[in-house]
Amino acid sequence: MGPGVEFDTIRGLLARWGPLAQQLGDDAALLAPTAGYRVVSTDACVEQVHFWRSWLTPQEVGARAAAAALSDLAAMGASAESVLVSFVVPDDWRHDLGAVADGIAGPVRDAGAVIVGGNLSRGATFSVTLTVIGQAERPVTRAGARVGDVVVVTGVLGGPGRALGALLAGRSPEPWARARFAGPVPRLAEGQWLAAAGATAMLDISDGLAADARHLEAAGNVALVIDDARIPCGPGCTAADALASGEEYELLATLPADALERLRAQWPAGHPVPFTVIGEVRAAAHHEAAHREAAHPGARDTTRPAGHDHFGTP
Amino acid sequence: MGPGVEFDTIRGLLARWGPLAQQLGDDAALLAPTAGYRVVSTDACVEQVHFWRSWLTPQEVGARAAAAALSDLAAMGASAESVLVSFVVPDDWRHDLGAVADGIAGPVRDAGAVIVGGNLSRGATFSVTLTVIGQAERPVTRAGARVGDVVVVTGVLGGPGRALGALLAGRSPEPWARARFAGPVPRLAEGQWLAAAGATAMLDISDGLAADARHLEAAGNVALVIDDARIPCGPGCTAADALASGEEYELLATLPADALERLRAQWPAGHPVPFTVIGEVRAAAHHEAAHREAAHPGARDTTRPAGHDHFGTP
Repeated sequence: MGPGVEFDTIRGLLARWGPLAQQLGDDAALLAPTAGYRVVSTDACVEQVHFWRSWLTPQEVGARAAAAALSDLAAMGASAESVLVSFVVPDDWRHDLGAVADGIAGPVRDAGAVIVGGNLSRGATFSVTLTVIGQAERPVTRAGARVGDVVVVTGVLGGPGRALGALLAGRSPEPWARARFAGPVPRLAEGQWLAAAGATAMLDISDGLAADARHLEAAGNVALVIDDARIPCGPGCTAADALASGEEYELLATLPADALERLRAQWPAGHPVPFTVIGEVRAAAHHEAAHREAAHPGARDTTRPAGHDHFGTP
Repeated sequence: MGPGVEFDTIRGLLARWGPLAQQLGDDAALLAPTAGYRVVSTDACVEQVHFWRSWLTPQEVGARAAAAALSDLAAMGASAESVLVSFVVPDDWRHDLGAVADGIAGPVRDAGAVIVGGNLSRGATFSVTLTVIGQAERPVTRAGARVGDVVVVTGVLGGPGRALGALLAGRSPEPWARARFAGPVPRLAEGQWLAAAGATAMLDISDGLAADARHLEAAGNVALVIDDARIPCGPGCTAADALASGEEYELLATLPADALERLRAQWPAGHPVPFTVIGEVRAAAHHEAAHREAAHPGARDTTRPAGHDHFGTP
């Protein structure tokens, strides 16, 4: 890199990232050949769309953006390998860019990945777009759910939605809910355990359990029947709260019932993130029946209020 | 994908892209194992930074962004394979998004690549960030220039700088200059020919020949001595114009003098894009001498006005 304000800024980022950043400065990064599949995804975090500046520290902005992007690898059952970071930086964010970079470093380091490329531009609105590359021996898509499979979710739901509700109302979220909103954790190990156990379909909950269950239904041409009473809800959250809460970055997966034993064997004793069986997969032709069943307490299908829609919500 | 305005918009993009778009709708795309290196880069195009809306049609915005991103693969001597497209779309751009997508499709299709992922977000400022993935048998970095190598450039320089000068002055650029600014072409085949011929270092000219030559100098710890009289200049352009003109997306490479015969053999007869030998690589210790030589007509070194700097120019 030569002289100039842009290059000085990039050098500052590289100094902060240290050995976490590799290969930057060339036109493109090299990825050595691998025996298995590579998995790739891109995700943007935009000020005033995905967050308001008063809600998060600059470090949290970076950590949250990185976690959200890495979560797409978790959803495929992949491990994380390489990250590219593209910043658009207004003048009033320039002094916070280092803190954002520090925030990004956390989840990238925790995932065992490195930063191999990026882009830096001025712009009127702050955004950071992360492209993540991983590897999967047995990638799991959204499309493979089979009738008779069980439906499993990781973690405890409702926190991000509860925090967002408080923030939008001008209140301070409870600490646990705020932590879930500001510092989500990509479930990379859990996704690999689910894949190894035989998960047939998987995604990460970004739009809300209800909306994301519909994505699995559409991709697999099946119906997911979820038992409200079994949804793991955070303190003070109802099942309805948990179903609507987006940006959870927990995993929703289907797997054969006889794979549950393998999954329990994979899951380390005392692991702080639980998995919970919350329902089952039925034939799409039974969808109407599932609708009726939804009228009964304790069982509902997911053809109901949509979760997060980038074009429809602030 | 489920219902919702965002998903409807994505479905509209997929309908426009047709078979050019593959795998979209899952959390991440799969890339099958390859024998050689994969090459990956990300590049952003931001309204009011990289262009003003009055300068370009929406289709040109898309085509130019895709060409700029793919050019980073050309600079490594790679072929193009997969593209991910992340849009940030203000309300007043929503009706033009389809035309931007059509513009992106052109260079992606010409490059033989497919679109395998993306992201769509609202936002106050329009931007499109493209991540490009390619393959290279023999990737060429910026760092390998050796003393005695010749310096080669593709194409004819000066057009984008000339167009930008006119646009910033409120004048209409000449058609040839505007075409070079609005519709750059990534030199993918040319980059592979240069790599196959034995290029030791290479990059694409995005900051201007002078500034980018300094990048090769810094990466290779050498001096590039460029002969002004040999720089291929567009109509009405001086060597100084050509040295300062950014966003050319032509290739600047070094290669052993005895590789020129191989390069001529690679280059098809009648190929519309020429390559020109414009200088030679000297030891960095000779840099001072190069400086002196620059005072003589017909020889200058490149430690001179910097080209494009995203943080420093509009």
